[in-house]
Amino acid sequence: MNYTTVEVRVRYVETDQMSFVHHSNYLKYFELARLEWLNFLGISYSQLEESGVLMPVVRASAEYIKPLFFDESFKITVSLIDPPKATLKFQYVVVNSKNITVCKGETVLAFLSKKTMRPTRCPKILNEKFS
Amino acid sequence: MNYTTVEVRVRYVETDQMSFVHHSNYLKYFELARLEWLNFLGISYSQLEESGVLMPVVRASAEYIKPLFFDESFKITVSLIDPPKATLKFQYVVVNSKNITVCKGETVLAFLSKKTMRPTRCPKILNEKFS
Amino acid sequence: MNYTTVEVRVRYVETDQMSFVHHSNYLKYFELARLEWLNFLGISYSQLEESGVLMPVVRASAEYIKPLFFDESFKITVSLIDPPKATLKFQYVVVNSKNITVCKGETVLAFLSKKTMRPTRCPKILNEKFS
Amino acid sequence: MNYTTVEVRVRYVETDQMSFVHHSNYLKYFELARLEWLNFLGISYSQLEESGVLMPVVRASAEYIKPLFFDESFKITVSLIDPPKATLKFQYVVVNSKNITVCKGETVLAFLSKKTMRPTRCPKILNEKFS
Repeated sequence: MNYTTVEVRVRYVETDQMSFVHHSNYLKYFELARLEWLNFLGISYSQLEESGVLMPVVRASAEYIKPLFFDESFKITVSLIDPPKATLKFQYVVVNSKNITVCKGETVLAFLSKKTMRPTRCPKILNEKFS
Repeated sequence: MNYTTVEVRVRYVETDQMSFVHHSNYLKYFELARLEWLNFLGISYSQLEESGVLMPVVRASAEYIKPLFFDESFKITVSLIDPPKATLKFQYVVVNSKNITVCKGETVLAFLSKKTMRPTRCPKILNEKFS
Repeated sequence: MNYTTVEVRVRYVETDQMSFVHHSNYLKYFELARLEWLNFLGISYSQLEESGVLMPVVRASAEYIKPLFFDESFKITVSLIDPPKATLKFQYVVVNSKNITVCKGETVLAFLSKKTMRPTRCPKILNEKFS
Repeated sequence: MNYTTVEVRVRYVETDQMSFVHHSNYLKYFELARLEWLNFLGISYSQLEESGVLMPVVRASAEYIKPLFFDESFKITVSLIDPPKATLKFQYVVVNSKNITVCKGETVLAFLSKKTMRPTRCPKILNEKFS
């Protein structure tokens, strides 16, 4: 139960004056990885939202091991921890082009009804794919 | 017909490896200025959106005269050019704490019906304030 | 050993199509809070960097309790956990204008020599202020 | 004298509560396109910076014709207008996956000496490639 993204390249705007990729961007890389994975599994997150289910991040953490620099390419491996329940827990490993791990992280996502803005069940389509 | 924002301070994340504020951020500063102005006039952009009117930017331009650096404070003066018609045209001047103009710009906003996603009229409340 | 920021207002660009503030922005809010605190203590992070010390984030986590929405104002309280050693550990609490906690988080920062890009000691000026 | 990028996909974080890609992101897409082009031509912008030449954007404009939505893929075609002089002028056309033009834009870049922070000449390597 894991997936590795295509190569992603650091954008200039993602650097800060330290010349490192700003640490907030890794949360965007994690997101990109899990949504690319859903696509790969034939699940469109857009359709999930249209069907009335939002999946906000309720917990996130990251360990920054080495910096990424402008123009470096990297890949993210995302894994689902446990089958889906009230939440989905993903782990991430970001490796640079020399195959060195630069960042590890974890996010927990909840299911929210768009109408009521209250917790709801994991959509069937996700359950089927991830169980 | 113009308004000057309270002091804003450059955030670390807004810098890039050149140590300048990344040029894309000025569009965010312009946005912040015009929405602060609407607030000041007693118009809530949130309520406009809830009432079914979106105001997307359809044209934007900026001239970058001097860089802004981390931790600098600056103000944005925003002016409405012409009374509202099918679009709203704003001009912006960003000055740093030494009162030096660092950036000038312009944006044109349209009115879009949230339902039909087609152009719609300028909401009354805006017309009244800006005419 | 803690500090509460001035009021900050959610920027339009910080929302995503869920209408919530995107979760990555809270790391920017945390950063803003700790740098505002340093300023308040008379420490310029710019000067720290110029003196050759970088302070990258090496660990970050956040718990998202309630969403923040466009135009909401909020405050961040930042606390230093333990006196400075090889790293600095900060905790954050973000409360909205109704005084409800919307997010809690933690970051760990390291000290890096700009020249050697290797760990270095906590600068004296920080040690003095935080001990 | 033009180049078309590989396919880029809209990231979730790039949307705003209007569900459109926020207009500031197009400046990042333009940047991505011109730096990918330099790479393609065998010019590393990182090396240019290391050799002491910064290339800040001094003017930018964009016309937003149609919105881009989350998960859409798009390509950017970038063209150099005129051979390099004191500045470099690029034009951009962003087309979505249905080959519809969603945005057009232009940026002007200057050459700045990293040491003196004053205008400098176009680096030879760029001159040779673009003349």
